[in-house]
Amino acid sequence: MKPTLANGTRDFGPREMDNRKYIFSIMRKTFEKYGFVNIETPAIENNSTLNKKYGSEASQLIFKIINSGNFLSKIKIEDINKGYKNIIDNITKKGMRYDLTIPLIRYIVMNSNKIIFPFKRYQIQNVWRSDRPQKNRYKEFCQCDIDIVGSKSKVCEIEIILIISEIFHNLKIKNYKIIINNKKILESISRYMKGSIKENLIFITIDKVHKIGIKKILKFLEKKEIPLLGIKKLKNIFRIKGDNFKKKNILSKYLKKYKIGINSLNEINEIIKYINNLKIKNINIEFDHTLSRGLTYYTDFIFEIKITNIKESLGGGGRYNNLTNIFGLNNISGIGFSFGIDRIYNFMKEMNLFPHNNNNIKIMITNLNKKLLNFLIKILFKLRKINIASELYLNTNKLKKQLIYANKKKINYIMLIKEDKSIILKNMTTGEQYKNTFNNLIKTVKKMI
Amino acid sequence: MKPTLANGTRDFGPREMDNRKYIFSIMRKTFEKYGFVNIETPAIENNSTLNKKYGSEASQLIFKIINSGNFLSKIKIEDINKGYKNIIDNITKKGMRYDLTIPLIRYIVMNSNKIIFPFKRYQIQNVWRSDRPQKNRYKEFCQCDIDIVGSKSKVCEIEIILIISEIFHNLKIKNYKIIINNKKILESISRYMKGSIKENLIFITIDKVHKIGIKKILKFLEKKEIPLLGIKKLKNIFRIKGDNFKKKNILSKYLKKYKIGINSLNEINEIIKYINNLKIKNINIEFDHTLSRGLTYYTDFIFEIKITNIKESLGGGGRYNNLTNIFGLNNISGIGFSFGIDRIYNFMKEMNLFPHNNNNIKIMITNLNKKLLNFLIKILFKLRKINIASELYLNTNKLKKQLIYANKKKINYIMLIKEDKSIILKNMTTGEQYKNTFNNLIKTVKKMI
Repeated sequence: MKPTLANGTRDFGPREMDNRKYIFSIMRKTFEKYGFVNIETPAIENNSTLNKKYGSEASQLIFKIINSGNFLSKIKIEDINKGYKNIIDNITKKGMRYDLTIPLIRYIVMNSNKIIFPFKRYQIQNVWRSDRPQKNRYKEFCQCDIDIVGSKSKVCEIEIILIISEIFHNLKIKNYKIIINNKKILESISRYMKGSIKENLIFITIDKVHKIGIKKILKFLEKKEIPLLGIKKLKNIFRIKGDNFKKKNILSKYLKKYKIGINSLNEINEIIKYINNLKIKNINIEFDHTLSRGLTYYTDFIFEIKITNIKESLGGGGRYNNLTNIFGLNNISGIGFSFGIDRIYNFMKEMNLFPHNNNNIKIMITNLNKKLLNFLIKILFKLRKINIASELYLNTNKLKKQLIYANKKKINYIMLIKEDKSIILKNMTTGEQYKNTFNNLIKTVKKMI
Repeated sequence: MKPTLANGTRDFGPREMDNRKYIFSIMRKTFEKYGFVNIETPAIENNSTLNKKYGSEASQLIFKIINSGNFLSKIKIEDINKGYKNIIDNITKKGMRYDLTIPLIRYIVMNSNKIIFPFKRYQIQNVWRSDRPQKNRYKEFCQCDIDIVGSKSKVCEIEIILIISEIFHNLKIKNYKIIINNKKILESISRYMKGSIKENLIFITIDKVHKIGIKKILKFLEKKEIPLLGIKKLKNIFRIKGDNFKKKNILSKYLKKYKIGINSLNEINEIIKYINNLKIKNINIEFDHTLSRGLTYYTDFIFEIKITNIKESLGGGGRYNNLTNIFGLNNISGIGFSFGIDRIYNFMKEMNLFPHNNNNIKIMITNLNKKLLNFLIKILFKLRKINIASELYLNTNKLKKQLIYANKKKINYIMLIKEDKSIILKNMTTGEQYKNTFNNLIKTVKKMI
């Protein structure tokens, strides 16, 4: 009888909503201050659109909607006998949004004549994935993406780093690091290793180094009977330490034969220099040549936000070339960054960074006598007229019950209105009481709020 | 090759998003000022929850999600042979949110121990219905609902009418009417007619009178061979005209035998009196004893927002008793109102009520020389530091192209930065130019923005 939530989904109650809106509002304001415009796309997309990018493994995580009406009308028993995979594309034509990138690209391709390029857009919407639920992993979750599409300028990379730093400053999150790298540097490392280790293995190795550590990686490679030269080269690469400048210099020596890697190293150096020149407090950019961001569609610059002692990043992104090609629009480069809302939320909650009591009603008027209702409604109307958030207790009830309600809702002032229409204003925190005319009490309230 | 939107869905571009956010922001602020708290519920609900309320016709409009993995594993060929209806409940367990009422009730039942009653909540989220797309009807659309659950006080009705009037005042919508009625009055009318017309036919008739008019209704009834007395009674009821007070008085005479109807007439009279006492500008409450709001779950007070010459209402709602019973929580009364966002949007668009240029970047810095990049980024950073929304044109490009971009994006000021780092500020609307130091130009800009 008692209803339940669908597995892996969540309700957000009033307090959680206040906190979530606090994060979103800071993000929106900052994006708009930087010239990003907002779009929204439907939760439902054609499967033909959704299937364009994600690999077959990801495709299995897409929620598919069964065709309305008689979905079996065109299905033959022979097809059913061959298994569910044989009929799924015929009984579902639509699915639910899996990320915000494919919808962005579809939007750009469909509206390329009216979009102002370079197109700087932000989008904050839910996505759905039929993943097995785990702690802090949900089937419905919110993504917050910014992308700049149609410019190869390095200013894009700088802009997004500046946005991150301004948002984190406004959210009062300190001690975060922006880890940066470039896929072309990884490519050059892989070329440098070639001959000693298979390319595939190099990428797997780099991708895993943060998860299992260098020692285990080296042991793992020894078991694979990698020649000693390979192990030695890898050790050299992994053990490059120091500040950004030092790491860049050492790596430049190893990769000196690979122009594409050297260019990317210089580019990273330049980006760091531009930002350092601004002397921003609390910004900490770290070049890490082992950052790989999985085997995603990024082709150049990649970055991630990390907090010490927290394994998962609070956001990540990178530059992608030719992503619009999948829908026939060629030669468009873009860069995107996705903020991990749930992780940012959890971190802020843990660090007690949310404002207290930000959305509350300031005054509750008591409702002690039915005959006074007309007067009470007038007082309520006057309070709201001067923009004081206020409530009248809805039922004529015992005072105690009304005070419990106000207390639970954290309403700080009570206007106690007696039968003779005299008004007492009570501060629920300090217990102070003021008896006066309505107009004089309003002056008192305005000073205190 | 070219991708398409799923049938019946929409993208919202930057301008539409600005307008939508303008509406939502006014609604949210007003709800919060009146003590309503915000919740959000998942887009996906268990079918067992979704199927609880909506009739079988509505249930067919619910988007159903196919079970992940081998959805056929427990299905027998015999079942398939009996038709799709016989297997649908076994191959889908979840569906998409169809309205905001069932999720609210599920939320209340699941959280009844921590909710502060009376529970005043607002919720602004999308819903999905597999309706045939028509003009201004979509498969994905936004609902904006407010409900007060757990109080039978008439103050609830008054509060929601006051919210409507404040929101419409802030949106600058005039000439709207709030039409009110009570289902109990309709019930009494139906009792008054009994003996002459079947009850079923009375409700159909009342529901249709606004759509096809009184004359056609009467002709339709004549064809049904209704006795003359019935037709006469209906004519009497439908032809009651005049102001609210007059209508109430005439109707009171017809319904004098039916206490429940008389009480409801008095209640409506009282609600109107309380609100009239506040002397609010532009509020227009009309009692209409033929308002029926379909055959929905409302049991008492019902209301609707109408604009002259527009057939569809801009919102509607009413009081419902015992709606939480479906999940085993008894004796809870609530009142809800749902704002029709798309219709409000379309009306405001037509009447040109949206603010112009509300979200734009104020200043664009030109990017004419790669060597200046460091300086340009510093200027950009300084502008944002003092909270001026600004952009640096991303690519080093011809001035003309940069001005076209600024023009398209409706950016009003250009900071033209020359090779010698001298700065010219140009007002793109007036053509005025100012040449000065950065600090002096900032003073100029601050005055003008």
